[in-house]
Amino acid sequence: MPVQAPIDVFSWPTPNGHKVHIMLEECRLPYVAHPVNIGAGDQFAPAFLKISPNNKIPAITDPNGPDGKPISLFESGAILVYLAGKTGKLMPTSDRARFDVLQWLMFQMGSVGPMLGQAHHFRLYAPEKLPYAIDRYSNEAKRIYGVIDRQLSTSKFIAGKTYSIADIAIFPWLRSWENQGITLTDFPHLKAWFDGIAARPAVQRGVKVLAELRKPLTSDASRDILFGKTQYEKR
Amino acid sequence: MPVQAPIDVFSWPTPNGHKVHIMLEECRLPYVAHPVNIGAGDQFAPAFLKISPNNKIPAITDPNGPDGKPISLFESGAILVYLAGKTGKLMPTSDRARFDVLQWLMFQMGSVGPMLGQAHHFRLYAPEKLPYAIDRYSNEAKRIYGVIDRQLSTSKFIAGKTYSIADIAIFPWLRSWENQGITLTDFPHLKAWFDGIAARPAVQRGVKVLAELRKPLTSDASRDILFGKTQYEKR
Repeated sequence: MPVQAPIDVFSWPTPNGHKVHIMLEECRLPYVAHPVNIGAGDQFAPAFLKISPNNKIPAITDPNGPDGKPISLFESGAILVYLAGKTGKLMPTSDRARFDVLQWLMFQMGSVGPMLGQAHHFRLYAPEKLPYAIDRYSNEAKRIYGVIDRQLSTSKFIAGKTYSIADIAIFPWLRSWENQGITLTDFPHLKAWFDGIAARPAVQRGVKVLAELRKPLTSDASRDILFGKTQYEKR
Repeated sequence: MPVQAPIDVFSWPTPNGHKVHIMLEECRLPYVAHPVNIGAGDQFAPAFLKISPNNKIPAITDPNGPDGKPISLFESGAILVYLAGKTGKLMPTSDRARFDVLQWLMFQMGSVGPMLGQAHHFRLYAPEKLPYAIDRYSNEAKRIYGVIDRQLSTSKFIAGKTYSIADIAIFPWLRSWENQGITLTDFPHLKAWFDGIAARPAVQRGVKVLAELRKPLTSDASRDILFGKTQYEKR
């Protein structure tokens, strides 16, 4: 087996970035994390657009792709499946168990990430406090936490008996529970699982990757880049 | 090869439902579509929750699962990957091309669906007209259409030279472009692709599945079920 050259990770310490950093740490793959400061507009650089056409972090380039040639990938969910396939880790090999993981990964991609992201937006970042929107996404956050808590009442991990990329995908989004209007002790099964994941050494290393670079989004300029006119004018 | 017993599809004629109906038609798999009237609260029935723990359509039960036993699946993205694997259709077999499809499928799951869904919500269904939220999601819709248009300027289909589950996942969400504040002719590459997909006989059959059952969400009761207190009280 050839020596694995480091994987280049173009990323930022957000929940979607953490997913990939944690996965790389869990699999002990060599990697170099390149900061893409989304508060400063780095995501609009043409070189980044080329590997991430939706202008979002994270994206990766693996010099040792499936056919031996380099491959680049965007979308954290696809990157998790790719790294699991590459290493044979954190995703079961039987079809039935694989689809258990995949459906919960899709739940993270379609509900957990987007809806908790909207809760963050209207609770923290929007220039106006809009009670209807705050309620909508805070209620949706509670509903989603309820779904996860119910699943974890009968299942040790999100998608069954073993730790998988579905856990890695969901965990980073729940770290900001306070910003989502959630009281973690209202969800005891979720909380026990959360504490267990948070205690894993690879998870603790993963959430620290690039973390020293992140600053609160307080300036009007960075808000414009992320939520306002800059983003739409640049496109 | 054993005869394929019909797949049970628990669904409704929404974009996420259409994805699976189109896929089943493209693959010519036998299926029975069971309506889950999300405007009437059918998604909260315990039997449905059992196979769809996030209480969302679509979900399927396949009597001939990968190990010969029945399997049920939720999340439209996972169902598409499952049906592609089962039939060997609409997803390439080489790893590189598979991950091209998977990353664009994840883009649909994480951005196209959730963000266009929020545009629908604030433009059509929210009881108050909130200019900030309407602008936010209408701008995001334009940005997403721009990403797709740019991709289709150099690629015949969403994820490369061949029609795939990534096209099937994205197409149904773009049918409501008017409700998202979009002018389709502003995106010429997207429009040409859209017209080509819309002309496919299997797509035309797929979008008609259960369609006669859907009524506009005009009653306060159905709005409460989908967006208001009923949903959160039932959980």
